[in-house]
Amino acid sequence: MRLVRFGEKGSERPGIIDAQGKIRDLSGVVPDISGAVLTPDGLGMLATHDFTNMPVVDPDVRLGCPIAHVGKFIAIGLNFSDHAAESNLPIPKEPIVFTKAISCIQGPNDRVVLPRGSKKSDWEVELGIVIGKKASYVSKDEALAHVAGYVLVNDVSEREYQIERGGTWDKGKGCDTFGPIGPWLLTADDVGDVQNLDMWLDLNGKRMQTGNTAKMIFDVKTIVSYVSEFMTLLPGDVITTGTPPGVGMGIKPDPVFLKSGDVMTLGIEKLGQQRQEVVAWEEHH
Amino acid sequence: MRLVRFGEKGSERPGIIDAQGKIRDLSGVVPDISGAVLTPDGLGMLATHDFTNMPVVDPDVRLGCPIAHVGKFIAIGLNFSDHAAESNLPIPKEPIVFTKAISCIQGPNDRVVLPRGSKKSDWEVELGIVIGKKASYVSKDEALAHVAGYVLVNDVSEREYQIERGGTWDKGKGCDTFGPIGPWLLTADDVGDVQNLDMWLDLNGKRMQTGNTAKMIFDVKTIVSYVSEFMTLLPGDVITTGTPPGVGMGIKPDPVFLKSGDVMTLGIEKLGQQRQEVVAWEEHH
Repeated sequence: MRLVRFGEKGSERPGIIDAQGKIRDLSGVVPDISGAVLTPDGLGMLATHDFTNMPVVDPDVRLGCPIAHVGKFIAIGLNFSDHAAESNLPIPKEPIVFTKAISCIQGPNDRVVLPRGSKKSDWEVELGIVIGKKASYVSKDEALAHVAGYVLVNDVSEREYQIERGGTWDKGKGCDTFGPIGPWLLTADDVGDVQNLDMWLDLNGKRMQTGNTAKMIFDVKTIVSYVSEFMTLLPGDVITTGTPPGVGMGIKPDPVFLKSGDVMTLGIEKLGQQRQEVVAWEEHH
Repeated sequence: MRLVRFGEKGSERPGIIDAQGKIRDLSGVVPDISGAVLTPDGLGMLATHDFTNMPVVDPDVRLGCPIAHVGKFIAIGLNFSDHAAESNLPIPKEPIVFTKAISCIQGPNDRVVLPRGSKKSDWEVELGIVIGKKASYVSKDEALAHVAGYVLVNDVSEREYQIERGGTWDKGKGCDTFGPIGPWLLTADDVGDVQNLDMWLDLNGKRMQTGNTAKMIFDVKTIVSYVSEFMTLLPGDVITTGTPPGVGMGIKPDPVFLKSGDVMTLGIEKLGQQRQEVVAWEEHH
């Protein structure tokens, strides 16, 4: 199933994309796509419905993040060896875990606003894991049973805030609009092999990132198992899993950072595409 | 006003402590103590009520975290110069910001469970700021108008996970039970000078930490202003502001860490006291 949330920001409604690619309104079936719906019971209930009777939604409707009320937005750093190299950092021995503020979450095609005075904002196409079942100290073998599905994430990052302002990376990862998620959540049963999905990102039409989830240092089951040692993961939590090479910070000889007027387009096989116009804070406010 | 949430874990109800120290049930007035109630309008509405007619609650009732649905649980590191010194770390030039997973939040007197195999869990008495009004790029002068009130926090920390496992501090800060908050939220109007509150923590009856919020390197208004540059703060978000010296990691010549059977008691002037029994994960499960 491909689950979406559509409508104006802050008043999104639940939907599903049917076999013909039409968005059907799920408001009559569930109040929203939140943790309770993403559990095995919730998804099992949804799967029994005949969606052909649900109202069809305007295909040009705005999409929001396909998960409502994300509890935790956890991120893994340097999870592709080539990206670690371009960042001038060693390949991590165990996953690097940081946090994106949930207030940064937005729809897949909403504008990305550069923080006030920001000079070093950057892009990162990533695979996001959506938790569907409480996970605490789960083994790698058990881990995938705790995943509801997958989403496309742009882990937008301000490198000066992340690296040069002292402390942890969290300062540069959770600025408003830095968490585009969607367009849809693809349930795990429809993904096939999650470790063989092509991923890409273009800046102003030029290919910047190319990768495949096969190249992840720590795979999805390892990440879910690992993070569950440090905190209990709950339905509706999202873990974004790291980016392949080709971020702006890594471009030689001179890094390239986002500026007002730029357009990011990105995608992951089976998980759809995003498009974000970039605007400076000073113009947006 | 001193606001509380009481009852069994997961089904707490809102309450207020009256002038006689009795807990009064607020269920008839508000559904819970969450972001909407913590806004200036929400607190203003509450203040007009005559609580003397509300039902009195058993004084021995369990207390939960006094804020429901905390969105973000942000923390400031090394905010007392003596604590930076005992941690063998320089005094920060600007606030160190990290994140505690919201799944670690619990009531003030619930047991603290050491993570599986944990050898280096530690205590940190801290002042917590509770946001009451959306804050984005607020100046220091405007900052306190965005604060609903204050809480006592034990920023329980696993030092090996925090420091020795690679990446950010977040790994050692968000383990389940590592976020006792309460007993009550004291609204800002009743706190007086928030930068002159005594704070202390005892381990098994022995005084380990003594401090006063006057000694903070970055004061409350600076912290709210600073964090609001990196993310939008929303009603119900909590920022815990750093700990005075006396943590276990800093004890010379040999650090002291929590073990099963230990009891932590801690308090901040006007914000009440907490008491936590420590238990190993292996005994708890």
